[in-house]
Amino acid sequence: MGTRSYAVLGTGAVGGFYGAKLQHAGLDVHFLLRGDYEQVCQRGLRVESPDGDLILPHVHAYNTVQNMPDCDVVIVALKTTHNLQLRELLPFLIKRKTIVLVLQNGLGTESEIAEIVGNQQIIGGLCFICSNKVGPGHIRHLDYGTIALGEYQPHYQAAGRTALLEQIAEDFELAGIPVNLSEDLLLARWQKLVWNIPYNGLSVILNARTDEIMHCSETRLLVTELMQEVVSGAKGCDRKIPDSFIQMMLDHTDNMKPYLTSMKLDYDRQQPLEIEAIFGNPLRLATAAGINLSRIATLYRQLKFLDLHNRRMLT
Amino acid sequence: MGTRSYAVLGTGAVGGFYGAKLQHAGLDVHFLLRGDYEQVCQRGLRVESPDGDLILPHVHAYNTVQNMPDCDVVIVALKTTHNLQLRELLPFLIKRKTIVLVLQNGLGTESEIAEIVGNQQIIGGLCFICSNKVGPGHIRHLDYGTIALGEYQPHYQAAGRTALLEQIAEDFELAGIPVNLSEDLLLARWQKLVWNIPYNGLSVILNARTDEIMHCSETRLLVTELMQEVVSGAKGCDRKIPDSFIQMMLDHTDNMKPYLTSMKLDYDRQQPLEIEAIFGNPLRLATAAGINLSRIATLYRQLKFLDLHNRRMLT
Repeated sequence: MGTRSYAVLGTGAVGGFYGAKLQHAGLDVHFLLRGDYEQVCQRGLRVESPDGDLILPHVHAYNTVQNMPDCDVVIVALKTTHNLQLRELLPFLIKRKTIVLVLQNGLGTESEIAEIVGNQQIIGGLCFICSNKVGPGHIRHLDYGTIALGEYQPHYQAAGRTALLEQIAEDFELAGIPVNLSEDLLLARWQKLVWNIPYNGLSVILNARTDEIMHCSETRLLVTELMQEVVSGAKGCDRKIPDSFIQMMLDHTDNMKPYLTSMKLDYDRQQPLEIEAIFGNPLRLATAAGINLSRIATLYRQLKFLDLHNRRMLT
Repeated sequence: MGTRSYAVLGTGAVGGFYGAKLQHAGLDVHFLLRGDYEQVCQRGLRVESPDGDLILPHVHAYNTVQNMPDCDVVIVALKTTHNLQLRELLPFLIKRKTIVLVLQNGLGTESEIAEIVGNQQIIGGLCFICSNKVGPGHIRHLDYGTIALGEYQPHYQAAGRTALLEQIAEDFELAGIPVNLSEDLLLARWQKLVWNIPYNGLSVILNARTDEIMHCSETRLLVTELMQEVVSGAKGCDRKIPDSFIQMMLDHTDNMKPYLTSMKLDYDRQQPLEIEAIFGNPLRLATAAGINLSRIATLYRQLKFLDLHNRRMLT
């Protein structure tokens, strides 16, 4: 128990937070970094959190996967906009029994990874967390932190509650991270999209916080219509999300503190938006099932335009 | 010939331009003004135009309809966002034979006016013009200027090419304004929406010029999809717009100079947007015909939000 070693690809708001928690709990963790490499080598990682700050003066830091040791679990915590790198990174890290744990937004990454690594064990993790990277090796955890874990099976067949999931859950719980196990990864990913599609999309397009979107009757209705389209998309993949789930998400958002979504934060920093993982892949799955999600497609096209112009301004 | 008198309600980019042209041609024209009343009384109207500037040092200006004389034709050139005022204004101006000429964007005003004035003769006019009001009594005409005229019949039944249309066309042509006569006003209004709905909506939502919208393949596709929805809406009203019309509008826009739509100009000036005339009324007509225009409805709800927040900033 607690003896597995972890490689973390992407030491940002998500990978940095969960990796630091695992290391703090005594697990052997190895972090891949890019721009922050020098500073993290010298100063380690720092996580500010309402649950108590975490200072790790020394971490195993790497700026190339070639130097990383074999680990039992590879956590993929890159932004999905960098997923093209996985073809280069993963082959160095995957041995016969390596487990891949995907901590990313949206859907589709697990099947992309399965194409790269073959018959490896893959777990999808959905992070319900508010955290930001505020400086090199410096993460600010604001709220929440639960992870939902589901095992990936080819074509997203439901895998059930497996022994593998329970092993990984043990490590995370040891690190004080609440874990839910999901019997059906694809269902869990579609459920998360019920929230992510309307609020991530509209927050960028309308330059708005969640509370502003909810206070205008027209956008509140649009949120509901978008959620219904997500439910239709899930249904096209034979996943049933009850209508009560929509009402639960609306109530939940009404009761949240005013909130800028992760996509809005990326936009404001002129970073690439996770449009394909959150919008493009679900749309393509739905289209393949003969389901037309025209409101979501409208947001998709608007976001593609905004992302392009937002980052063109940088150059 | 050329002896009809005109009352102009709304002496802005449209009413000011066409009214000045009519007066310059020798017709008897009377202008209703609000904020610009004092200045126009003193200095008259000025129209800058590539066709030659027009200086009218003296015009008949009024700040209340009660003082206006009986006119043969009442031109309604208010922004549609002020149409609630028509219930108060029109009854003072309508005599037994008064003709109402509606020079407004979108659709639905003619039937609203029919409810107010009863069995009066009503003509709809579609203005294909780029002009702006740049100061009190000061209009800048940039390009185009053609008017398409169609007679209104109850429930927008096609009226054909009527004698009434030809009389009004005579006055406008005398004033050097190109006129097309439309046998079917509702068809003409839906046709104009094929352009107005995508470009007016997306220019505001995406903060974009027409050329930027056209250069991004995703928004170019969205424009086409929105145009197809407009064509479906027209079809629900038994109006046939051929697919070739969509291609013609796309080609036309590709060949236009980079252009900010009228709705974008209103937005940038924090003025109310003509959302109901351009989006709301067509959506309601389509819904009544059992047609679901979900992309247009998405834009409608986004614009309602943006308009609200845009003007709230003023207070």
